[in-house]
Amino acid sequence: MASLIECVPNFSEGRRPEVLAEIVHAIGQIDGVTLLDHSRDETHNRSVVTFAGSAEPVVKAATAAVGRALELIDMSQHEGAHPRIGAVDVIPFVPLGHTRLEECVDLARRFGELIAKLYDLPVYLYGAAALRPDRRRLADVRRGQYEGLKAELGTNPDRDPDFGPARLHSRGGAVAVGARKPLIAFNVNLATEDVEVARRIAGVIRESSGGLPAVQAMGLLLENPGERPSAQVSLNLVDWEETGIATVVNEIRRLAREAGTDVDHCELIGLAPTAALLEVAADALGLREFTPDQALELRLARDR
Amino acid sequence: MASLIECVPNFSEGRRPEVLAEIVHAIGQIDGVTLLDHSRDETHNRSVVTFAGSAEPVVKAATAAVGRALELIDMSQHEGAHPRIGAVDVIPFVPLGHTRLEECVDLARRFGELIAKLYDLPVYLYGAAALRPDRRRLADVRRGQYEGLKAELGTNPDRDPDFGPARLHSRGGAVAVGARKPLIAFNVNLATEDVEVARRIAGVIRESSGGLPAVQAMGLLLENPGERPSAQVSLNLVDWEETGIATVVNEIRRLAREAGTDVDHCELIGLAPTAALLEVAADALGLREFTPDQALELRLARDR
Repeated sequence: MASLIECVPNFSEGRRPEVLAEIVHAIGQIDGVTLLDHSRDETHNRSVVTFAGSAEPVVKAATAAVGRALELIDMSQHEGAHPRIGAVDVIPFVPLGHTRLEECVDLARRFGELIAKLYDLPVYLYGAAALRPDRRRLADVRRGQYEGLKAELGTNPDRDPDFGPARLHSRGGAVAVGARKPLIAFNVNLATEDVEVARRIAGVIRESSGGLPAVQAMGLLLENPGERPSAQVSLNLVDWEETGIATVVNEIRRLAREAGTDVDHCELIGLAPTAALLEVAADALGLREFTPDQALELRLARDR
Repeated sequence: MASLIECVPNFSEGRRPEVLAEIVHAIGQIDGVTLLDHSRDETHNRSVVTFAGSAEPVVKAATAAVGRALELIDMSQHEGAHPRIGAVDVIPFVPLGHTRLEECVDLARRFGELIAKLYDLPVYLYGAAALRPDRRRLADVRRGQYEGLKAELGTNPDRDPDFGPARLHSRGGAVAVGARKPLIAFNVNLATEDVEVARRIAGVIRESSGGLPAVQAMGLLLENPGERPSAQVSLNLVDWEETGIATVVNEIRRLAREAGTDVDHCELIGLAPTAALLEVAADALGLREFTPDQALELRLARDR
């Protein structure tokens, strides 16, 4: 069984398309890597690339991408709305298919050590790959951003990186390398125009206010040209094995009906792990003893 | 994109486990082939092996399996309840993942010609691979079985094979090679003990009595030790892109409610194409513009 790993590096450059093109090209040149997506945000002055493959090609591609970004992006010139500490700001590794999170933790740590040496770059491990509990949250690692870190590094030992020198890279700053589970971005549109209903439901179900674990939610009013506006619960499921799509939708449906309305339809943003969607099918059919291995292509992927 | 093809050869030997073991071994030895299942039926004196891979290894493995079966099985000694014309009775090729049925049609024809030459074996093409409309149905190809075909071959030109000699192979008889879509075996258990309800629903939904296309159905009473008996609609979906799981279950639910009962739960027998299950998830969530490519692992498989 070959491991299948997704890598989603974020680059502090969103205004020069040619820079993103160069980085994407460097990634795409590695055999065994599949480019899944790339997007560029001018306001945030930031780009995100998504690619996947087995461990070795993914590490090769991520290493090449960091090298290219350090050549093309100068953090001392960077401005943008999004918090960041470096030219390659953050590099999460995400397990796909039957790959376990632990594999990505190992990979993130090996990769962090590798690029710290290769590029003389300070590397912080975050998420499931963190070596210190106070570095699990990306926000804590990024505290003070590039400018703040520049002032603290070398004087405050508490900010020393996990790998590499205790000073910023001359052009690239620092980088956060981590491991996390795949994130599912998902919206539930209600059969009402009353945004308060969506906000109340979001308040009940999100983890931060004591709701379902590993669920982030907010209520908003969706205005589609040519359609009636509709209240929407916008969701991130940050650990679908903890709380899955079916659980969330069933709970929102229950709350919506209590409020005298109902779920109209759902939207899946981008990609989701196949097993998370199969769980919805199994729930809908009341399948007993179903496993994702009963999905032919997944079963084949497992045995190869 | 590499094609992904399933092959499900049926062998006329179900009483000597060592023969099945030898055949499975011959298949498993081919690099790039994944064995998915094998089962042996003593009453039918017949075995079924399921394996998959890309076109070349699948052809190699199927060729090796035919060779081994011709050495180990003597049709002149064969008795069993299941209709059959040869030692390797039938070899269907089935498209998985993004592979199209047409690829399996081509493959079946090339493979049929190959084994006819290699083993001096009469080969009939059936299913989507048939060259004559009267050979699409396997039952028509098998008419008279091994014994009947032995009598007719060489005297009735209408029974001439598509490839190979117009006489049976001395040990192996003849073989039917075909292409078909994946079959989904699926049961819907009703919240009633009244088998008549299941029979009536099966009668309404099956294609043969004017119901849903590509659906085979029958009603039966399921008796599980320790549980209350329950009426079951047992289904084969022979073309899930024509009529999918969700359509069938929603229709059965409607009919069950009309009859004053409901669907209790469903059972998936064995494996099903991932996309057929994702369709159920999309239906349950009311997802708009969903494509199976939004399932990460399928998307990756497509691009590799």
